[in-house]
Amino acid sequence: MKILVINGPNLNMLGTREPEKYGTKTLKDIESYISEEADKLGIEVNFYQSNIEGEIVNKIQEAKGIYDGIVMNPAAYTHTSVAIRDAITAVKLPVAEIHISNIHTREDFRKISLTAPACVGQITGFGAVSYKLGLIAISDYIKSLKD
Amino acid sequence: MKILVINGPNLNMLGTREPEKYGTKTLKDIESYISEEADKLGIEVNFYQSNIEGEIVNKIQEAKGIYDGIVMNPAAYTHTSVAIRDAITAVKLPVAEIHISNIHTREDFRKISLTAPACVGQITGFGAVSYKLGLIAISDYIKSLKD
Amino acid sequence: MKILVINGPNLNMLGTREPEKYGTKTLKDIESYISEEADKLGIEVNFYQSNIEGEIVNKIQEAKGIYDGIVMNPAAYTHTSVAIRDAITAVKLPVAEIHISNIHTREDFRKISLTAPACVGQITGFGAVSYKLGLIAISDYIKSLKD
Amino acid sequence: MKILVINGPNLNMLGTREPEKYGTKTLKDIESYISEEADKLGIEVNFYQSNIEGEIVNKIQEAKGIYDGIVMNPAAYTHTSVAIRDAITAVKLPVAEIHISNIHTREDFRKISLTAPACVGQITGFGAVSYKLGLIAISDYIKSLKD
Amino acid sequence: MKILVINGPNLNMLGTREPEKYGTKTLKDIESYISEEADKLGIEVNFYQSNIEGEIVNKIQEAKGIYDGIVMNPAAYTHTSVAIRDAITAVKLPVAEIHISNIHTREDFRKISLTAPACVGQITGFGAVSYKLGLIAISDYIKSLKD
Amino acid sequence: MKILVINGPNLNMLGTREPEKYGTKTLKDIESYISEEADKLGIEVNFYQSNIEGEIVNKIQEAKGIYDGIVMNPAAYTHTSVAIRDAITAVKLPVAEIHISNIHTREDFRKISLTAPACVGQITGFGAVSYKLGLIAISDYIKSLKD
Amino acid sequence: MKILVINGPNLNMLGTREPEKYGTKTLKDIESYISEEADKLGIEVNFYQSNIEGEIVNKIQEAKGIYDGIVMNPAAYTHTSVAIRDAITAVKLPVAEIHISNIHTREDFRKISLTAPACVGQITGFGAVSYKLGLIAISDYIKSLKD
Amino acid sequence: MKILVINGPNLNMLGTREPEKYGTKTLKDIESYISEEADKLGIEVNFYQSNIEGEIVNKIQEAKGIYDGIVMNPAAYTHTSVAIRDAITAVKLPVAEIHISNIHTREDFRKISLTAPACVGQITGFGAVSYKLGLIAISDYIKSLKD
Amino acid sequence: MKILVINGPNLNMLGTREPEKYGTKTLKDIESYISEEADKLGIEVNFYQSNIEGEIVNKIQEAKGIYDGIVMNPAAYTHTSVAIRDAITAVKLPVAEIHISNIHTREDFRKISLTAPACVGQITGFGAVSYKLGLIAISDYIKSLKD
Amino acid sequence: MKILVINGPNLNMLGTREPEKYGTKTLKDIESYISEEADKLGIEVNFYQSNIEGEIVNKIQEAKGIYDGIVMNPAAYTHTSVAIRDAITAVKLPVAEIHISNIHTREDFRKISLTAPACVGQITGFGAVSYKLGLIAISDYIKSLKD
Amino acid sequence: MKILVINGPNLNMLGTREPEKYGTKTLKDIESYISEEADKLGIEVNFYQSNIEGEIVNKIQEAKGIYDGIVMNPAAYTHTSVAIRDAITAVKLPVAEIHISNIHTREDFRKISLTAPACVGQITGFGAVSYKLGLIAISDYIKSLKD
Amino acid sequence: MKILVINGPNLNMLGTREPEKYGTKTLKDIESYISEEADKLGIEVNFYQSNIEGEIVNKIQEAKGIYDGIVMNPAAYTHTSVAIRDAITAVKLPVAEIHISNIHTREDFRKISLTAPACVGQITGFGAVSYKLGLIAISDYIKSLKD
Repeated sequence: MKILVINGPNLNMLGTREPEKYGTKTLKDIESYISEEADKLGIEVNFYQSNIEGEIVNKIQEAKGIYDGIVMNPAAYTHTSVAIRDAITAVKLPVAEIHISNIHTREDFRKISLTAPACVGQITGFGAVSYKLGLIAISDYIKSLKD
Repeated sequence: MKILVINGPNLNMLGTREPEKYGTKTLKDIESYISEEADKLGIEVNFYQSNIEGEIVNKIQEAKGIYDGIVMNPAAYTHTSVAIRDAITAVKLPVAEIHISNIHTREDFRKISLTAPACVGQITGFGAVSYKLGLIAISDYIKSLKD
Repeated sequence: MKILVINGPNLNMLGTREPEKYGTKTLKDIESYISEEADKLGIEVNFYQSNIEGEIVNKIQEAKGIYDGIVMNPAAYTHTSVAIRDAITAVKLPVAEIHISNIHTREDFRKISLTAPACVGQITGFGAVSYKLGLIAISDYIKSLKD
Repeated sequence: MKILVINGPNLNMLGTREPEKYGTKTLKDIESYISEEADKLGIEVNFYQSNIEGEIVNKIQEAKGIYDGIVMNPAAYTHTSVAIRDAITAVKLPVAEIHISNIHTREDFRKISLTAPACVGQITGFGAVSYKLGLIAISDYIKSLKD
Repeated sequence: MKILVINGPNLNMLGTREPEKYGTKTLKDIESYISEEADKLGIEVNFYQSNIEGEIVNKIQEAKGIYDGIVMNPAAYTHTSVAIRDAITAVKLPVAEIHISNIHTREDFRKISLTAPACVGQITGFGAVSYKLGLIAISDYIKSLKD
Repeated sequence: MKILVINGPNLNMLGTREPEKYGTKTLKDIESYISEEADKLGIEVNFYQSNIEGEIVNKIQEAKGIYDGIVMNPAAYTHTSVAIRDAITAVKLPVAEIHISNIHTREDFRKISLTAPACVGQITGFGAVSYKLGLIAISDYIKSLKD
Repeated sequence: MKILVINGPNLNMLGTREPEKYGTKTLKDIESYISEEADKLGIEVNFYQSNIEGEIVNKIQEAKGIYDGIVMNPAAYTHTSVAIRDAITAVKLPVAEIHISNIHTREDFRKISLTAPACVGQITGFGAVSYKLGLIAISDYIKSLKD
Repeated sequence: MKILVINGPNLNMLGTREPEKYGTKTLKDIESYISEEADKLGIEVNFYQSNIEGEIVNKIQEAKGIYDGIVMNPAAYTHTSVAIRDAITAVKLPVAEIHISNIHTREDFRKISLTAPACVGQITGFGAVSYKLGLIAISDYIKSLKD
Repeated sequence: MKILVINGPNLNMLGTREPEKYGTKTLKDIESYISEEADKLGIEVNFYQSNIEGEIVNKIQEAKGIYDGIVMNPAAYTHTSVAIRDAITAVKLPVAEIHISNIHTREDFRKISLTAPACVGQITGFGAVSYKLGLIAISDYIKSLKD
Repeated sequence: MKILVINGPNLNMLGTREPEKYGTKTLKDIESYISEEADKLGIEVNFYQSNIEGEIVNKIQEAKGIYDGIVMNPAAYTHTSVAIRDAITAVKLPVAEIHISNIHTREDFRKISLTAPACVGQITGFGAVSYKLGLIAISDYIKSLKD
Repeated sequence: MKILVINGPNLNMLGTREPEKYGTKTLKDIESYISEEADKLGIEVNFYQSNIEGEIVNKIQEAKGIYDGIVMNPAAYTHTSVAIRDAITAVKLPVAEIHISNIHTREDFRKISLTAPACVGQITGFGAVSYKLGLIAISDYIKSLKD
Repeated sequence: MKILVINGPNLNMLGTREPEKYGTKTLKDIESYISEEADKLGIEVNFYQSNIEGEIVNKIQEAKGIYDGIVMNPAAYTHTSVAIRDAITAVKLPVAEIHISNIHTREDFRKISLTAPACVGQITGFGAVSYKLGLIAISDYIKSLKD
């Protein structure tokens, strides 16, 4: 099983960016953590990060035929991108949307997700663990389709 | 580690209730599944289901001192209960809110969660797997507090 | 044909409660009236009243397999209960929602019904007659299904 | 007792118009059914249908002194006509507003009734039976005024 | 100077319709009163009343070239008719919108006027006197254009 | 008959202030015009202008017992002053609210009048003539009370 | 192929009505233009204009069985008529909604179309050319159904 | 004079629940304090606490004929319970709604009280003192009725 | 202990102003009542009333260093004055906001208090007794700060 | 005449993306179709597609001086891009906005177009034919400017 | 060049009022700072502060003919005063609206400025420096008019 | 001191783009002007312009450690970009948001700034001078941090 992990804008700043909200781990640290968890689950993972909405759209389109599913933290684009939502619907790959912080405890505009309705589900608030949960969720989902 | 799994109104109807939305597994089936997953994780789980908002409030209050955390599917009360939200805040136990279906793809009033802001996080849309993810999420969260 | 008549919160106060809005008949009076009308229609009726939302949910769930349909006046819970709505959808019994007063002439929050979308239909404003209309409506509906 | 049955715009298309929502009976069929039910109730009924809002206003005004009450399905004008509402208030005849489909399960703009606050009550969702319920409701209402 | 006085839906019911809101004078009485006042002002007046929105649109269009201005009480159509608004803009005749009752003290939907922005001004709340004020207003307006 | 004419904030700037909206007449010019019209109507008028909300409240309170009614252009305070509204209700003097420009053609916040519901009625859009109409309206209203 | 071209309220005033928004061509001119374009496309066209909402409903109903499709400019009724929307749905004829001016650059209430969801599509802003585009659109649509 | 003091959901957790918002006194402490103040005022008080909305409805209904008035802190149900509001209206007992914290400084949904319009008045923000104020308020109110 | 009692606009009209809402006592009567109650509580009170928003701001600023707290009925300014709110925050004196009538049973705009979030708490609906409750509330609050 | 055809995000997925909504033709197929239609009209067309909002902004800016007009399907950016809107306004080239599906029958957020107010007009719902209509619309518009 | 610096309500409390938001400088300190900066710029400045909305309106009116421009911090009146907005429009003097704190990071009602649309521009968030920026802005603006 | 000046989408079109709103100076002209002003202030400035949201995010991230602060005109992205807002928060560099035109006098959606809450402050409406004010504001801010 092959999963693509996509991180949206400013997540390359993790560790230095508002650590009281996002923790002190860098994106590198989190990717190592995800790799380890993926290994345990027998999943092959690749990582992609971009600050450009349209490049994420491109990446999702290219994922088709290469990956079995996507774990994505769309960050700021969660709340503003119809294009990413449409890309997910277009490629028909299962996507788990994840968030590090609990978006329900933040500004009102962060409670609305434009992308979640196109995903299998959403996980929010468990720090780096959200990524691991996303991996398990999407791999269990893919297995259930094969049953 | 001891976790209480709370299921809200009408979840005792699982399997017969709108299977196209909630699947064909009964609550019993799901509890068995959760128990198995809990065993693998070395977690002791107990189950509680009620259709009465105030009884769920009572149960959350009683959980204090007995359980390390709660995995809760508040079902209909997600969208109408300030009392359950206040109970979670009052007992200060870590709670993972979970939903079987993806609430972002349903009626508008189901997109708003009154309870999620009092929880550590929320998991929505992965079927019965949402409960397993909740268990992992809350146990990892409790472990991280001990670090 | 067996029909359950459910009355929601404060309807046990009928006759004494705001008679200018709800009339001077007590719940007992109204139940006698309904029984008479049911007799004429050849319907067996049973009555249930509760002030507790979750108990009404319980009763709706238990009605499955025993009753052919429900005539329900959810009273205050009309406007606040997603749980009762979900219970109706879960049991798949036909329900006629009825109201004694015309909810369209009252406070704005009473114009919105959370429960009506799960019912076959809604009857509002005809006093105690609303219950009789509910009986006829639901029995005609059940007969039409058998055609 | 003499009752006027008014049908609003496009109800002359019944039977051919969206049968999955409004059934396969034509307006003629429904009028026959209403006549039969009226006979049983000892009520004299007349029918009126128009697609023109102002003509319905005219008809309601003319009904004064001729009819004891009105059963009306304002159809599309339910949601847009203050003029019909004002006509009902002006003539002070008792009106039962009825709808074939359950307006609470349709588009948001169909949930708001501008005309219902001027009526005795509203019946929605029971197919052609809604008209029969309207007849009973309005005749019981008229009788109660005489008591 | 020639002025057309247009009365909208249900104003033909004046005197019998909700006298506590609209007074006990019939439309005839009010037209006599307007004629007298017009005489004093040296204005020739004609009257038109219709319950049909589109007929009022027709009348406004026909007024062009015949009348110097219009005094109009659009009644219920004040709040729902874009067509009447567009007719006024199209003919470019000066119109004084008048109301018998004070629309600011009634239901919220009556506070919004779709037609007033196309008129010179609006007069509301002075009973039959509102028509006289409308006559004076529109004739002074016409005179001021000639200066 | 004695009428007080109150002008709200910035109306002392008339003539110089946005003449395309309010005309080129100064407040002095308008007061002369009002005096002339009052003379024709056999009404004694006094004038008051203030830019201070609370002073207008004071003046309205003092008018009680001295004046038979008030013609008021509350200007900017139309849209923000609950205090002036309450003052009118408190003194129980009949008030005609008038506006020089048509408030329905301006910014959205100018369409809402907090003061109009406490007045007999409102006249808007006829330039200086609005004051004359206000005088006639309020004197006719006072006379009608004496009948 | 036979197409009915329906024009709504005040479009009979074209040429004289706000020429800066709608151009200087009269309805006659535009109908000539449409006829010419229809000739080139081998389409037979008939024209209908009415200021009365319900008459347009009547015409749409009568079009069934006579015409292959409709090009309609509902004008003011675009924003207020549920009845016309329901008529289109009832007859199941393909309709192209067209507008002369770009409704997205006008008042907010003109941006909402109640009728467009019942049409195949909408064309707005290209002056008289919008009608020609409507003809092409609806004829291509009809041909595609036959493929 | 006999007063019932009702405490809503989670108030049994006082002292341990968010002490920065609700203080460190337990419900027991507060009840002792209320008893002392009641003694000084010559009032007999009884206490009731429940987490179940419908049980509070029951208790309010039973209070009729036994108590002269109610001091109630509906807590979370303040913002979601139409049933409690209807119960107060039904029994016609004077009720003083009180809150420990100032609800105007908290989340937006806590600023709206569904229950207050059915009460004599509301007291919010004075800690445990709010209960004492409620006692004085309701006893003064009862005395004033006897005058 | 020294408390300033501030009364906002139109409260000088008490007794004559809408007695069905505010009672028949004049402001003088109420001040006598407050003085008596203050005497019993061993509090020195001074009174201030103004109809001018900015003068109330001035008075609140001057109260600093002279008074221990304020009991204020901001009347109409409750709903429109950010300036009074800011004044309270600026002087950091404890303020009890009080209202004679129950603002929750009146117009919607009276339910929103701009000033309450800057106060310790709010008391509404108990007639003149509200002032007495305010005195007790604020003096108990001041004492609790000294503990 | 030289026209640029711009396609926004995910339109490169046409044919595979939700064929029930967008049809089975690929972007290539549609471009061939457009080229053929352009040939018939004597128009030279070039194609551009990008998933990146800012690149579309760049392309629009570069079009100035090279192309006579633009036919654009902004897809997802229709609803979120102020930048594309500003680019159109900045270059002052005539643009026809087109959509394949009828946006009025989809999610609420797709009914609002941020880009349409900067375009000459909008065409929505006619499948691939929308592009052909756009070509005709924009070329007729350009010709009309030259007249 | 002569500039008037107007400070609105509660700014006379600067230094003592919420220093974490507004800094520890008194209004005196800030005026000294502004004078120094004005000297460097060769501008003559005068200061005015009032807590009364209408007095600020008076001052703006009087400024005409005496000053070349105004730097104004309307404080609380920014969000509630149409009167000040109208005064600025009436006198046609260039005004720079300034705020010490960043209003975009505060309560929602502080993000809306009623006065800014009548000003040349707005500067918010730079502490006392905002005044200096206002001076430069308005003097550069005045100079540019002379070019 | 080193300041980065960032210009958002379409600002490269300055001079040709809507000169009545943005003036006739090109971006080049404005950059020269800013350079001159920066020289006077002893500030080193660099310029960056992009039409791509994500590239601006990249640039802000890279600015960390190189620049002391940023003066940014986010143009269209002001109203739609959560990503740029998050980038500013992430890098913790002081930013002055500036706008050439007064955004408070334009379309409603331009009054909301998603980026301003993450900035020190905002300057809007003073033409090219806004950039100079931004330079002064941000340099004074940086100096004040060093004090």
